[in-house]
Amino acid sequence: MNLPEIKNRLANFAAERNWDQFHSPKNLSMGLAAEAAELLEIFQWLTEKQSCEIIGNDKEMQHVREEIADVFIYLVRLADKLNVDIEKAVLEKVEINETRYPVELSKGNATKFSKRQK
Amino acid sequence: MNLPEIKNRLANFAAERNWDQFHSPKNLSMGLAAEAAELLEIFQWLTEKQSCEIIGNDKEMQHVREEIADVFIYLVRLADKLNVDIEKAVLEKVEINETRYPVELSKGNATKFSKRQK
Amino acid sequence: MNLPEIKNRLANFAAERNWDQFHSPKNLSMGLAAEAAELLEIFQWLTEKQSCEIIGNDKEMQHVREEIADVFIYLVRLADKLNVDIEKAVLEKVEINETRYPVELSKGNATKFSKRQK
Amino acid sequence: MNLPEIKNRLANFAAERNWDQFHSPKNLSMGLAAEAAELLEIFQWLTEKQSCEIIGNDKEMQHVREEIADVFIYLVRLADKLNVDIEKAVLEKVEINETRYPVELSKGNATKFSKRQK
Repeated sequence: MNLPEIKNRLANFAAERNWDQFHSPKNLSMGLAAEAAELLEIFQWLTEKQSCEIIGNDKEMQHVREEIADVFIYLVRLADKLNVDIEKAVLEKVEINETRYPVELSKGNATKFSKRQK
Repeated sequence: MNLPEIKNRLANFAAERNWDQFHSPKNLSMGLAAEAAELLEIFQWLTEKQSCEIIGNDKEMQHVREEIADVFIYLVRLADKLNVDIEKAVLEKVEINETRYPVELSKGNATKFSKRQK
Repeated sequence: MNLPEIKNRLANFAAERNWDQFHSPKNLSMGLAAEAAELLEIFQWLTEKQSCEIIGNDKEMQHVREEIADVFIYLVRLADKLNVDIEKAVLEKVEINETRYPVELSKGNATKFSKRQK
Repeated sequence: MNLPEIKNRLANFAAERNWDQFHSPKNLSMGLAAEAAELLEIFQWLTEKQSCEIIGNDKEMQHVREEIADVFIYLVRLADKLNVDIEKAVLEKVEINETRYPVELSKGNATKFSKRQK
């Protein structure tokens, strides 16, 4: 993925419209949460099984794709504004998770999983 | 960004722990929204100006980095489960936005901006 | 429910701590969303059936009760700040919903339900 | 506020439409978070000052009222499904907060406030 290009394109998009003034980290975190909630809304009344089967519904999948993109866009903007290197942050967090949830202790146990998450 | 590698590493992480059973799109959308809300919480009581200045606070920035990573991780897992090519979805959405918000109509107008967003 | 008393108690709580300055509608909407996400987190990895059975788990239910209270508290504060009469707003919205989702058209159909929601 | 009446009316509304099957606590927590995010969206691009001034805008206030009602409706349904007495839960939480944030330590300090919140 060419993340620097996406980051620049989004930065230019905002700059050209004079929207940088609205893109404080506070506001972007609100936008991010609002977009994440639109994904939530898609799955709200579906069973887990139905949420897997949505993959066969072109119209719904178009909606899913747009909302995934929106979340990504706000996340990239927020990271850009705060000079966060997303790839580095993700790799660090994956390592933290690998230590925090050792395979032998976490294997297939929802309850344990849920508790250990916190 | 080596997105395929991150995607595979997250998929392996889940598979090794038998957590794939919990990773329905419905559940992942909940995880995503919950993590986005943790970012929100960081900025909740800050003014917009303070939310920009957080960049100088190493401890808070470590927190921000982890939450950005968590949102990204859930988003990648969700996209993987639903066979969504994030980069393609993002580029398509950016083009939609460029059409929807023409520079000359959108320039620096918060009210118009807010309305046109919908 | 003695809502005026709760409203006053919450207003006094904020005033005594000089926290009214932080209670802009914008900030309160962030607090509300963050607390709603904490409820979400409780149910994130549970199946729908398990989410019903949580009622038999005293420790989890104590957690649920606290998060429900937190959402309610932010909602009452937000409504207070914007002079919204919650009871009146709710009764109006229930009437809108009764018209929008007529019994005969909405009966037991998840798909239709989900679509009609929007 | 006649909460028992509202609770019954919402329960009847769901029962008449055979929607109780969709109202698992898990699903209701998703609905609640989605509605809270719609409030968030209203304030997303407003400054804190503008978010206070919204009170003078009848059209926006109608929107605010509907979203506040939606959050309340999901919260009442969720509490009903899990036999939570909202008023009791709120009064207990207010007492917890009064102990957790003593007036003398919390007075008007945003930083302290933000930290102590956690």
